[in-house]
Amino acid sequence: MQQTRLNTDRIRAARRLINPVFRDTPLYRCEALEPDLGCAVSIKLETANPVRSFKARGTEVVASLLADRGSQAVVCASSGNLGQALAWSGRDRGLDVTVVSSRFATASKLDRIRALDARLELVDGDHELARDRAVAIARSDGIRLVEDSLDIETCEGAATIGLELVDTAPSFDTVLIALGGGALATGVGHVLKALAPEVELICVQPLGAPAMTRSWRSGRVVTTDSTDTIADGVDGRRPIPAVLDDLLLVADDAILVQESSIITGMRLLFAQAGLIAEPSAALGIAALLENRDRFAGRHVVTVVCGGNVDADAYRRWVGADPVHGS
Amino acid sequence: MQQTRLNTDRIRAARRLINPVFRDTPLYRCEALEPDLGCAVSIKLETANPVRSFKARGTEVVASLLADRGSQAVVCASSGNLGQALAWSGRDRGLDVTVVSSRFATASKLDRIRALDARLELVDGDHELARDRAVAIARSDGIRLVEDSLDIETCEGAATIGLELVDTAPSFDTVLIALGGGALATGVGHVLKALAPEVELICVQPLGAPAMTRSWRSGRVVTTDSTDTIADGVDGRRPIPAVLDDLLLVADDAILVQESSIITGMRLLFAQAGLIAEPSAALGIAALLENRDRFAGRHVVTVVCGGNVDADAYRRWVGADPVHGS
Repeated sequence: MQQTRLNTDRIRAARRLINPVFRDTPLYRCEALEPDLGCAVSIKLETANPVRSFKARGTEVVASLLADRGSQAVVCASSGNLGQALAWSGRDRGLDVTVVSSRFATASKLDRIRALDARLELVDGDHELARDRAVAIARSDGIRLVEDSLDIETCEGAATIGLELVDTAPSFDTVLIALGGGALATGVGHVLKALAPEVELICVQPLGAPAMTRSWRSGRVVTTDSTDTIADGVDGRRPIPAVLDDLLLVADDAILVQESSIITGMRLLFAQAGLIAEPSAALGIAALLENRDRFAGRHVVTVVCGGNVDADAYRRWVGADPVHGS
Repeated sequence: MQQTRLNTDRIRAARRLINPVFRDTPLYRCEALEPDLGCAVSIKLETANPVRSFKARGTEVVASLLADRGSQAVVCASSGNLGQALAWSGRDRGLDVTVVSSRFATASKLDRIRALDARLELVDGDHELARDRAVAIARSDGIRLVEDSLDIETCEGAATIGLELVDTAPSFDTVLIALGGGALATGVGHVLKALAPEVELICVQPLGAPAMTRSWRSGRVVTTDSTDTIADGVDGRRPIPAVLDDLLLVADDAILVQESSIITGMRLLFAQAGLIAEPSAALGIAALLENRDRFAGRHVVTVVCGGNVDADAYRRWVGADPVHGS
């Protein structure tokens, strides 16, 4: 294939920088989901760790390299999961961490960032405004800005999930990946194309935050003016050109799903798999719900990439269950 | 120490018989729980696997040995988790599995046993009556009866959790273990006493099902006429003498907890850790809630041993949250 920005040897090296608590996550067939979905479903679970999402794989790589170089501080913009992960990885290595978030981000995610000793700065706007502010802080303070998906370490960290998928001698046909900034999709996608090219990589994004999917479909960056989705982990509006270029090389398809399917996906993961998934982590199940014929009889892996939910919102989402009783 | 029925070399050998999907489960510090509990808390998570509990560690050992000997069939009595695990392990090795359950067992657990192709027989009584019926089936059919906690393989399988705890070079002071029949407690306890004797093992049981705890305290088998607890995984009434003998050698204490603490424990695991725990799996958190002074400042590991909940009952349990808002 054409070259992405990633390199498999570098991904293997990155893996060694990641605290083992974030590696070798559970991967297992979940038969209880299958009657509702019509295909074989395996779960790659990225929520059973200290930050409840896969993002620490990337921040572990970033923070390790910064600490090795003697850096003192780091900043990022985050709707929550990256910020929490960077706070954890930075604290573990003695770095001062600043996280810039939207004031409208999930409250429990912001609480966790504070609890991990990071300095939290809130902006009156969405994630893109937070990103602008983080850029300004990095410039004025002369510190490293961690940009999710643009910074190669975030993609390499996420790509280690791909190594774990292919190391199990996969019998699966398809990997479903939540698509936001693109680190997870391009990272896992690079590894699959390099080491298991017969496996299909399908990205899933909410209809209410479709910028990257539209960009992938048209082959050029398409931005949107706003987003409208509960999936706060993937609600970007301005795809990064270099990440799109990689995505064009590794994704076999990109699917948009409705909000109602995301909620049904969370309900199924709750009731049938016993898993608390945040909306972004239910995108794969949502794609299966909306495309039963396409996936019928196939073996699909979906990466449950985060479980940081606001408890009250989550109770509302899963409180009434049209699939399996009230 | 005096000898239990277990042997560390045999436990290491048992580990090799267990499908890797059930081994090397997540073990991680969960800081978000700590403000409510007043001590350092790590989670050993046994729910992210195809049967959502630790029980398959034991049934993998049993089923492997049976298949090696050319056995065709196996039977057990189970309130759900053992039955589901034996159904999985037996199916994987071509064994016919019969599970005898109480008609009053958690419906979702019974559904999962059926879905795994086991023959399910229901009795109009509690777990002890189901055990009597399973004994009768084993005799009449001439097949192996798997008796949880009595059969050494079930203890050896559970004990592999202990190997994983000590292999992480533990910095923890205490392990909290749900106490039912005793396989988990004696298995993990044996390994701790053999390989990390400085670590305290504390068993936790519901006040409504206190037979084993009372037996441990008095040094002889104490039975009860009934049980009254939502923790269906640990609701035995007739402790097994040989298991009690082992427990007397390895447990440092046995604590009884109230139902309300079990529910608060499930709520905390839901809201602060993002984990769905069945009542038995919240016993450790319940013990911390009721004994804050005792554990203050210590580092405690609690084994979240199962996540098979009835979705509706679980919604009721975690639906209103006196700890963290409604």
